[in-house]
Amino acid sequence: MSKTTLAVIAAVSAGAGAAATATILNLRPNNKHVEVLNTYSPSAIPLPSSSVPVPASQVFNPPPPPAPSSSPVSNVKGPAPVNPAGLFEYGFPGPVADLAARQAFISSYDRRTRNPHWVAEHITAESLSRREGDRKHSTFLEDESVPEKFRAKLKDYFRSGYDRGHQVPAADCKWSQTAMDETFYLSNMCPQVGEGFNRDYWAHFEDFCRRLAGTYPSVRIVTGPLYLPQKDPVDNKWYVKYEVVGSPAPNVAVPTHFYKVIFAEDGKQGGQVAVGAFVMPNAVIPNSKPLQEFEVPLEVVERASGLEFASKLPAQRRKRLCVETSCSLVVKEYADRQKAFAKK
Amino acid sequence: MSKTTLAVIAAVSAGAGAAATATILNLRPNNKHVEVLNTYSPSAIPLPSSSVPVPASQVFNPPPPPAPSSSPVSNVKGPAPVNPAGLFEYGFPGPVADLAARQAFISSYDRRTRNPHWVAEHITAESLSRREGDRKHSTFLEDESVPEKFRAKLKDYFRSGYDRGHQVPAADCKWSQTAMDETFYLSNMCPQVGEGFNRDYWAHFEDFCRRLAGTYPSVRIVTGPLYLPQKDPVDNKWYVKYEVVGSPAPNVAVPTHFYKVIFAEDGKQGGQVAVGAFVMPNAVIPNSKPLQEFEVPLEVVERASGLEFASKLPAQRRKRLCVETSCSLVVKEYADRQKAFAKK
Repeated sequence: MSKTTLAVIAAVSAGAGAAATATILNLRPNNKHVEVLNTYSPSAIPLPSSSVPVPASQVFNPPPPPAPSSSPVSNVKGPAPVNPAGLFEYGFPGPVADLAARQAFISSYDRRTRNPHWVAEHITAESLSRREGDRKHSTFLEDESVPEKFRAKLKDYFRSGYDRGHQVPAADCKWSQTAMDETFYLSNMCPQVGEGFNRDYWAHFEDFCRRLAGTYPSVRIVTGPLYLPQKDPVDNKWYVKYEVVGSPAPNVAVPTHFYKVIFAEDGKQGGQVAVGAFVMPNAVIPNSKPLQEFEVPLEVVERASGLEFASKLPAQRRKRLCVETSCSLVVKEYADRQKAFAKK
Repeated sequence: MSKTTLAVIAAVSAGAGAAATATILNLRPNNKHVEVLNTYSPSAIPLPSSSVPVPASQVFNPPPPPAPSSSPVSNVKGPAPVNPAGLFEYGFPGPVADLAARQAFISSYDRRTRNPHWVAEHITAESLSRREGDRKHSTFLEDESVPEKFRAKLKDYFRSGYDRGHQVPAADCKWSQTAMDETFYLSNMCPQVGEGFNRDYWAHFEDFCRRLAGTYPSVRIVTGPLYLPQKDPVDNKWYVKYEVVGSPAPNVAVPTHFYKVIFAEDGKQGGQVAVGAFVMPNAVIPNSKPLQEFEVPLEVVERASGLEFASKLPAQRRKRLCVETSCSLVVKEYADRQKAFAKK
């Protein structure tokens, strides 16, 4: 019921009547919305003026900032009359980007869109050669480490018209059943167009990434959703527009695009890294489309996502992936292999 | 130029030709996008398995998680073949929610939308009674503590059709010129509809908050943007749609709605807190509209924003603001006061 309120309030426009609001309020009086989900303890708040120990659990999902004992008030006569950081007595608002360290990848979750911010995996020829996991033993899982009110649910995807699209592909994690199982958390999923994208062009693109591990000793892939503006031809303004799927109320955003940032490493400490960034629409893409048409400067992904992927990678260590190697899909070979696999 | 690429890539649909992409790539070859903005040092990475000191600067904008020395691999024969956390050698992707501690408020910035996540202020009868700051001495400022590529710019607002809408109102910070000046950072702004909203209903709502400080010894207000879905009457699906303004390319999201979460405190340690949450559309709202129509359960704001505002405030300390006091605007009185003020 409470999820309905999000939908209802969205409909509360300037012209809406009191009825809708009253309905919300009658359904869930404000003072019944008490949840103590934040287990962060004030006694552990690190002070800004000194270095104090921070428990690992707080570092991994970083703790709120401390309440400054006094504001940096410079031109005020006498003490500052207010203490804005006092709010944090009631809990730090966040945002919290729920980090999860899995066997084969690390993920960061966006509580607002109910999609990951990013998932970061690592593959090698050896990791791909091991076959100890099988996806037929895996099942899609809600991520219970995410608080219920921010969690993507199985029912949100049900009959949504979209695939539960793995961001780290299950096929990259066959080296252990647990590693594979962990790719099935919904915190590793986004709603993806199935036919023509997730099951086709995007799958071929994932295969391209795996093939890189045949050329490079170590390959890192960061994957995630984007919500990009399009220009409206009528009013010439830019709008972000995306669907939100869910049941009983809209809950999970449907990204307009997806990115992958690929780091193909030469395996040497401080060695060369071939970097490639790609952005694809969450839409049917013909197999005939050259992969390189989706290559973008890394900064495009950074500006669009609000993230930074290589801030500490010096220029002299960088190569451009699609100069170092051929950025092209092998659709036929992939299709054949899938067929061969299906016969097994 | 680089900002244009965001706009260009948004237009890269499955059907787009190679020309657009090639244009991007020619303009800004990938390996020239080197920026070392992240000054986070790997030697300071706190280890997950023990407590180590964290410098205050890192606590305030929380540092990336550590690279686990070994993954929690349980059912793997031998060592795990991969190390996904190795990515962080290149920098932690974020997201970073740039926190700023000002004299009168604290703000958290969303690098993706170029709006705040939230701004948290504190007002009292005494802070409002002091008149040492005057907005005629203040100027709108880009927030240079936010990296350039994620920063809202003055030119983004110029001729956008929207006001630079203060989230913490300047009028709440007259107790020092610096406190007032700091409300003019663009990291305290969102694009707001001017006539009929920012200059009218929303301004009356801000006045309502100030009047609370006449009743309650201490008032905290958290304000921020929302991007809410609306149901499309044609296909019955839910869509989030919002404009993105900017020059030369779209940069700053125009929120569909705004929230305020108000904590009216009785001034006693561990005392009663009257909580009210409100959501208003970023649109013209007639002054005749009762304020209470915009009251919502706190959880509605939390689900929509991905934030939590009172996770550590026990139920027995909570009251409902609009039960404790009259949640209504005083439009006439406010207009008169503004008129009187204008004559000064």
